[in-house]
Amino acid sequence: MKKVAVIMGSDSDLPIVERGIAVLKDYGIPHEVHIYSAHRSPVECREFVTGAKANGFGVIIAAAGMAAHLAGAIAAATTLPVIGIPISSKNTGGIDALLSTVQMPSGIPVATVAIDGAANAAHLAAEILALSEPDLAARLEEVRSASHEKVLAKDREISARFAD
Amino acid sequence: MKKVAVIMGSDSDLPIVERGIAVLKDYGIPHEVHIYSAHRSPVECREFVTGAKANGFGVIIAAAGMAAHLAGAIAAATTLPVIGIPISSKNTGGIDALLSTVQMPSGIPVATVAIDGAANAAHLAAEILALSEPDLAARLEEVRSASHEKVLAKDREISARFAD
Amino acid sequence: MKKVAVIMGSDSDLPIVERGIAVLKDYGIPHEVHIYSAHRSPVECREFVTGAKANGFGVIIAAAGMAAHLAGAIAAATTLPVIGIPISSKNTGGIDALLSTVQMPSGIPVATVAIDGAANAAHLAAEILALSEPDLAARLEEVRSASHEKVLAKDREISARFAD
Amino acid sequence: MKKVAVIMGSDSDLPIVERGIAVLKDYGIPHEVHIYSAHRSPVECREFVTGAKANGFGVIIAAAGMAAHLAGAIAAATTLPVIGIPISSKNTGGIDALLSTVQMPSGIPVATVAIDGAANAAHLAAEILALSEPDLAARLEEVRSASHEKVLAKDREISARFAD
Amino acid sequence: MKKVAVIMGSDSDLPIVERGIAVLKDYGIPHEVHIYSAHRSPVECREFVTGAKANGFGVIIAAAGMAAHLAGAIAAATTLPVIGIPISSKNTGGIDALLSTVQMPSGIPVATVAIDGAANAAHLAAEILALSEPDLAARLEEVRSASHEKVLAKDREISARFAD
Amino acid sequence: MKKVAVIMGSDSDLPIVERGIAVLKDYGIPHEVHIYSAHRSPVECREFVTGAKANGFGVIIAAAGMAAHLAGAIAAATTLPVIGIPISSKNTGGIDALLSTVQMPSGIPVATVAIDGAANAAHLAAEILALSEPDLAARLEEVRSASHEKVLAKDREISARFAD
Amino acid sequence: MKKVAVIMGSDSDLPIVERGIAVLKDYGIPHEVHIYSAHRSPVECREFVTGAKANGFGVIIAAAGMAAHLAGAIAAATTLPVIGIPISSKNTGGIDALLSTVQMPSGIPVATVAIDGAANAAHLAAEILALSEPDLAARLEEVRSASHEKVLAKDREISARFAD
Amino acid sequence: MKKVAVIMGSDSDLPIVERGIAVLKDYGIPHEVHIYSAHRSPVECREFVTGAKANGFGVIIAAAGMAAHLAGAIAAATTLPVIGIPISSKNTGGIDALLSTVQMPSGIPVATVAIDGAANAAHLAAEILALSEPDLAARLEEVRSASHEKVLAKDREISARFAD
Repeated sequence: MKKVAVIMGSDSDLPIVERGIAVLKDYGIPHEVHIYSAHRSPVECREFVTGAKANGFGVIIAAAGMAAHLAGAIAAATTLPVIGIPISSKNTGGIDALLSTVQMPSGIPVATVAIDGAANAAHLAAEILALSEPDLAARLEEVRSASHEKVLAKDREISARFAD
Repeated sequence: MKKVAVIMGSDSDLPIVERGIAVLKDYGIPHEVHIYSAHRSPVECREFVTGAKANGFGVIIAAAGMAAHLAGAIAAATTLPVIGIPISSKNTGGIDALLSTVQMPSGIPVATVAIDGAANAAHLAAEILALSEPDLAARLEEVRSASHEKVLAKDREISARFAD
Repeated sequence: MKKVAVIMGSDSDLPIVERGIAVLKDYGIPHEVHIYSAHRSPVECREFVTGAKANGFGVIIAAAGMAAHLAGAIAAATTLPVIGIPISSKNTGGIDALLSTVQMPSGIPVATVAIDGAANAAHLAAEILALSEPDLAARLEEVRSASHEKVLAKDREISARFAD
Repeated sequence: MKKVAVIMGSDSDLPIVERGIAVLKDYGIPHEVHIYSAHRSPVECREFVTGAKANGFGVIIAAAGMAAHLAGAIAAATTLPVIGIPISSKNTGGIDALLSTVQMPSGIPVATVAIDGAANAAHLAAEILALSEPDLAARLEEVRSASHEKVLAKDREISARFAD
Repeated sequence: MKKVAVIMGSDSDLPIVERGIAVLKDYGIPHEVHIYSAHRSPVECREFVTGAKANGFGVIIAAAGMAAHLAGAIAAATTLPVIGIPISSKNTGGIDALLSTVQMPSGIPVATVAIDGAANAAHLAAEILALSEPDLAARLEEVRSASHEKVLAKDREISARFAD
Repeated sequence: MKKVAVIMGSDSDLPIVERGIAVLKDYGIPHEVHIYSAHRSPVECREFVTGAKANGFGVIIAAAGMAAHLAGAIAAATTLPVIGIPISSKNTGGIDALLSTVQMPSGIPVATVAIDGAANAAHLAAEILALSEPDLAARLEEVRSASHEKVLAKDREISARFAD
Repeated sequence: MKKVAVIMGSDSDLPIVERGIAVLKDYGIPHEVHIYSAHRSPVECREFVTGAKANGFGVIIAAAGMAAHLAGAIAAATTLPVIGIPISSKNTGGIDALLSTVQMPSGIPVATVAIDGAANAAHLAAEILALSEPDLAARLEEVRSASHEKVLAKDREISARFAD
Repeated sequence: MKKVAVIMGSDSDLPIVERGIAVLKDYGIPHEVHIYSAHRSPVECREFVTGAKANGFGVIIAAAGMAAHLAGAIAAATTLPVIGIPISSKNTGGIDALLSTVQMPSGIPVATVAIDGAANAAHLAAEILALSEPDLAARLEEVRSASHEKVLAKDREISARFAD
């Protein structure tokens, strides 16, 4: 199976990003985790990304906050699908990171998920890889079913509690 | 090659969405175009989407404005990758559609592109399908190179014009 | 009397929603409480809603956060009045949920109340049902009067305190 | 059948509000149209509203822009359901009117629809009145079906056009 | 000297409003403090305001949060100058109250101060009354001078501390 | 009667500001109109403002757009009441000017009116001066009554038109 | 004198950027104009920027819209001062470009000017270069004086016109 | 070497501003720290600023919150480069200070950094001064290299940790 690269702009993003790494592990998707900054290590970042396809990666996830250029910089260096996670920060709640990640110019798309949406970045990566991995596709259906069952169980519990 | 389904919530979205359809055509990606509304034809929408994988689709693009629920409703009905295009409208400039499309709950991702970013939705769909389509992958690289050449040519023209 | 269905998208919404349930209880309005997710249990949600009228419901209250599609998805499945409560979340303060709930397309209205306005959702449901329930209408007037008296009493207390 | 009062704060709101009046006419719902300003004729507004129930009204629709206090002022004077339409204006796109209409304090709800959402205000009024008017309820279902058929027809047209 | 009426919409606004009351006391301006709600005691509010001029008031200060209609409702009932204080709340940080207070229609002005700007509401009231109260005008100049001296002293302290 | 100074930051603000000048003329309030920029003629601005009281001015109105510092700079130089008009501009709709005008620090109030609210700035100035000018106070009541009559007449016209 | 590099992300930015080029010409500051895209020609952009100091440049001006990464990408490749111009676009009015340009992480500053503020970018570049160019410093003072005189002349004209 | 003046509008800004002072110290750049308020000590502020060039200053950094006029007022009084730091506050997260600082009119630029971006204000000041200070230019490169090395080290640590 192709690998997923998880790149964050700073280790301060790790507490959010780890939720996505856990999802990748749960799906059994091989992955690498890196810190590359669009502004502090742009050359190494670009070097990693331009070699990503040849090195067996199929999807790149990029997480950054504030003027979040990381996902865009990565998308500019590869034609692999790039998923962007805007990371929230204290003053603006992440709306700066959301706009900096999603408002990309024509030709260089970034598949943006919700502010702090690291888990969904991983689910989306799984959906993309599953197109050519039947086992992963089946696992995705199982995870969906489990999530479905869980919400049905919660409904039974809540509706019973308030029926008294 | 797997097909791309392009779904819009209303025919008023067509002038924007057509930019993406043109990109799909340019890549030679087989596609279908539909109008399904999350609120006016939700059952038919769900029916189409649940059958999409079996019917040969690999990616679904969904475009909607205002309280843009379409991409999320589609993502809820499939584990195929779903790309959301927030469509602008007069009063809010599309920020309502952007937030309604991107702020999805954990487990049901929508790969969101820029407001009115129909072309990038198509480029992203191509990047996803290209993971198992070497010819499309090569075509993606060509398109990138052409875009690269074009911007270099514009630089030569502009830098010359202002050098006088 | 017709019943009110209170539906929330996740049990994390319960602390807010309970304020509305308390108001319904105070009015003596029969109600059921459910967890249905527009994205994790859309089929069960739709099934419940399409049967709601026949099962004696007169109003449906829907609470959800972020890309809050729940109220809209419910409104798409019934011609009963649907009241939407946008639930706040940490990063955006609920403006995403407000826009996702209120900016509905023509033909499918959602009666939207304030961010986290669960109590008002219940008051509004009572006002709607009271149109054909004279006792409830009288009870509404009592509650208004009590609220009126309470604010007058607070004025007397405050104006006296600061008169010294 | 109970009547609907349509109140706007200024005659400049009429081009938007007329879309809702047309919907009420289409449903055959008896209605009156008024201009009352929360700031320029508050006493007459309150007088009309406090007498509304006795005068055969079941729902009040209120449309206003900028610091849109009208719907809230009306809701403060009656326990009839009050529907608020935030009207857009040039500088803010109506976000001021939306927040001024929807963010009501506990106890005095306003059922808010989208910015400029006059048609939905009328549809919502119809849904409320239909709870005790079986013919109107049937008419609502017809209108929904027609809207449903219309979007299906548009899908057939569009999907055929792009299939060539 | 004419009196200042300080009106707040709810006793939850008191912690902010008290900062303004303290400023009025400091200026020696006679004042009354009231709780009147635009939505829960609108008739008493209007009664107080329409009699305010005859009862010796010269300025009215109104504080309210969320859909802050109070200052506008008061301004609609008097030609005395009305000062509005938008009160912050958790979800929106007070931007709803600011827009609801400041965006008044032509003919009914509200002199709006900063979010939670109760002290400035009192300073502004003092400036208005001082136009015909030479002693208060002199006191205003003293307060300004003191504030000026205080900031100069802080500069000396800080510039010295960082000169080491 | 004390005079009103109307100061704008740029002659591009004149089309908006003229609406306020017309209102001052209508009230018969003596006034002067100036262009002083907080950034291009700050010394002359301050000189004018510090002499304003001695030169017979009672209120200063200041209009500016973008980073609208003018009203604040004027308020810093006088204890006369200062009224700020935030002027809209193309990109931000005037929200920058509103925040720059209204969010003043404690001790230096600016009485802010709506974005482009020049007429209300003049009405507010009239209300302030009327505290010691009985004739102006009477004129204010007349203007209010006329506005009241006008909206009542519009109600009669509209309600009749839609009664057919 | 050191040169100024003016870089824009797309030739669609030229109508705005030309206002800044005109200011540079007026100051007699040597400059080059380029189109480099952070996403379409990042390698050439970086190459130009890393050589900029050695090639006689002292300041770099970068203009871009939407997810405006250009100024940040340039700032990451040089320790020359980089000035960012956020370019407006239809849907968001440039707030996306402003946040993407200004919210830079610690260590990589971008000197951001107003949305579409190309003239000020050039004035700022002149101020920076003037620190070691006495003639340019003198020219800056002249330009300021001229602007000062112009606004004083406009005041004389306007105050006279409205004095009649 | 020319000095940097660090001016803040209030001592409440000091905890943020100190981060920038530390950076200046680290670069060995001579500096003075002052509290001058655009509204409480505008004359002293202007006096300091107009003399700044003659007193050996090369750059002025200005930090202020809310209606942050300080940087603009300083820029109006000098042709030295002025760097503005918008300071966050509780209710608006600093967006008011950002817009008040950055949206300057043509001719009076403020080099704006991120909300609370005091460190970057100092880095930018260093970049400006380094144009004529080769030792400082070398030091800037060292600091960049160190930051570069640090992020590479973090990448090695993180990529190793998640490789297990």
